[in-house]
Amino acid sequence: MAFSHLSHVECPRCGLTHDADTLLNLCSCGSPLLARYDLAGVEKPDGPNSLWRYHQVLPVRDPDTVAAVSMGEGMTPLVNLHRTGQSLGITLLMKDEGLVPTGSFKARGAAVGVARALELGVRGIAMPTNGNAGAAWALYAARAGMRSVIAMPRDAPLITREEVEISGGELVLVDGVISDAGKVIAERLKTEDLFDASTLKEPYRIEGKKTMGYEIAEQLGWRSPDVIVYPTGGGVGLIGIHKALLEMRELGWVTGELPRLVAVQSSGCAPIVKAFESGAETAEFWEDARTIAFGITVPKPIGDFLILDALRETGGTAVAVDDEQILADQAETARLEGVFLCPEGAATISAVRTLRKDGWIADGEEVVVLNTGAGIKYPGIRL
Amino acid sequence: MAFSHLSHVECPRCGLTHDADTLLNLCSCGSPLLARYDLAGVEKPDGPNSLWRYHQVLPVRDPDTVAAVSMGEGMTPLVNLHRTGQSLGITLLMKDEGLVPTGSFKARGAAVGVARALELGVRGIAMPTNGNAGAAWALYAARAGMRSVIAMPRDAPLITREEVEISGGELVLVDGVISDAGKVIAERLKTEDLFDASTLKEPYRIEGKKTMGYEIAEQLGWRSPDVIVYPTGGGVGLIGIHKALLEMRELGWVTGELPRLVAVQSSGCAPIVKAFESGAETAEFWEDARTIAFGITVPKPIGDFLILDALRETGGTAVAVDDEQILADQAETARLEGVFLCPEGAATISAVRTLRKDGWIADGEEVVVLNTGAGIKYPGIRL
Repeated sequence: MAFSHLSHVECPRCGLTHDADTLLNLCSCGSPLLARYDLAGVEKPDGPNSLWRYHQVLPVRDPDTVAAVSMGEGMTPLVNLHRTGQSLGITLLMKDEGLVPTGSFKARGAAVGVARALELGVRGIAMPTNGNAGAAWALYAARAGMRSVIAMPRDAPLITREEVEISGGELVLVDGVISDAGKVIAERLKTEDLFDASTLKEPYRIEGKKTMGYEIAEQLGWRSPDVIVYPTGGGVGLIGIHKALLEMRELGWVTGELPRLVAVQSSGCAPIVKAFESGAETAEFWEDARTIAFGITVPKPIGDFLILDALRETGGTAVAVDDEQILADQAETARLEGVFLCPEGAATISAVRTLRKDGWIADGEEVVVLNTGAGIKYPGIRL
Repeated sequence: MAFSHLSHVECPRCGLTHDADTLLNLCSCGSPLLARYDLAGVEKPDGPNSLWRYHQVLPVRDPDTVAAVSMGEGMTPLVNLHRTGQSLGITLLMKDEGLVPTGSFKARGAAVGVARALELGVRGIAMPTNGNAGAAWALYAARAGMRSVIAMPRDAPLITREEVEISGGELVLVDGVISDAGKVIAERLKTEDLFDASTLKEPYRIEGKKTMGYEIAEQLGWRSPDVIVYPTGGGVGLIGIHKALLEMRELGWVTGELPRLVAVQSSGCAPIVKAFESGAETAEFWEDARTIAFGITVPKPIGDFLILDALRETGGTAVAVDDEQILADQAETARLEGVFLCPEGAATISAVRTLRKDGWIADGEEVVVLNTGAGIKYPGIRL
């Protein structure tokens, strides 16, 4: 039984297939690429208590690579938000992605992306980030013995800068937003032996993030909830969860309707909401993007068409919420549930309130929200 | 099969037994109390992926209480620090206690302590803290619908203050150290309907923390490592691990020699090291306590005699390390292993270096260090 059932890499836009055992970035058509597996013979997991229990549907071929790179990431708890759920007349479950190394769900993508890159001979990675992804990739790169160059907006959370610095990675602070940081990285890639690990510009970060979808189904006893609500910046987690759901349906691990996927954005940066509402297939660049939920300040996600597909194919939707409401829900959730959400996580609670009010979420439905990071990463945000 | 096998509560100093189903603080002789179980019939765990898998040897009697209070705490990964271990000629494993709600191992004690207090009718708790314990108890108390009054030194980490505030708990900032905060709480307890949840002044916080010991043994395939190294302030974790080892030996889950337990302190506050070296049975108050590893700034732990017993009974030792070395090892571990330790966790690496150098840890031994919290809780500590 192969440790990984990875078969090839495929373009979701033009359909071209690529050899999975070469180093890949975007398709020749410019689209992000997706990993495909030979799903025949893949068995339900009974392995370690981490995302690596799903190793057969992950791209890393050698268990020794996993042993070298993993820090025990994944299998985060699904916490019942009893009081909030009860007051809204629903079952409300929160997947706590703060409980992974580096304190954000970005660790999933970094663990799998770095491990696969190591296997394919990469010796250094580079990427732009809003903070958490860069922090995670810098630390996992250090563990793998790789160099890292991480560019982030000067306003990114202090601790994420320090995570890059303490890892020995090269930190580049940029005046502007993540797309400006992307320009800096693009320049560096031209002249240096660095692998481009930017969001969706390599095919394996998303494979790590899709494990959130596998875990939700397994933790519910191999079934889907009615709705999954995800704070959406680059949207890799949402695309990944959608991919996991499709794979699990093909595997026969879940049956019936897919859960409706919901993308939550801040009203200060809502390109996906705007595109979804207007029926567009891609997003337009959001000018003057700004929100307290810093992690989702992405003016024009490269995977916009994949995010919009995921929402539409599952009968989902997109919602924008105000910063003021986000902070109110962060505090309310701590007082009522004892859970200290990150701002992006709190935005999902605000979105659930909106969707329940207007009836989009029905009475008695089961809703899973993703808290994408630990509230403790952001001291001072409420002051 | 009873969910909990709790039988009674016992004084480790005078031997008096107490009814476990009444609300208890210290023994009438002034000693901390320990929970005792009817170990006959207790089975190896196969329950949920949290510390509650050990529910038979935990004090909470009703699974519904667990469902109400738990946030999925426990079963943290044991991460191999390959490079550091190799350079020292040992197997070095780090238990990552940053990966629990509130980002520190204090969540274990809070989850079990609050759940048991809830079951016994408590409606509000009060305690002094160096930050992390108070943060954890305030958030778990909020989840349980309890009031909390938390006193901490003004210098305590910013984010721990904010955790108390956002939980709706009452935060009292004190000029001084944790013993000064203790005086403030003692005054409040005289006039208000609050349960004293100070370190070791109720018997169940330690029960939550002992699960670190159970997990280490289970994660190693039901055996003990050679050495367990613990950053020691109040020392509840160390006493708890010792208690777990003794229980597991009685249960037949581990056999042979107990691991040697090591208490690590900062040279800026080392009352246990001083007492251990002088052969004393209790510690003296450490004047002008000060260290960058804020969590272990405890000038005179109430459980001093239990800590010293645990060290001596297991053939262990106590080591003091300098702040400068702690910061160097924090950075070195991030660069080499990708792991961002908290200062208290980094202190254990410094201690292992010292003990390896002087031969106390032998070539090829297996050493488990406890990283008691997430490095991300302390932005700016390195600046």
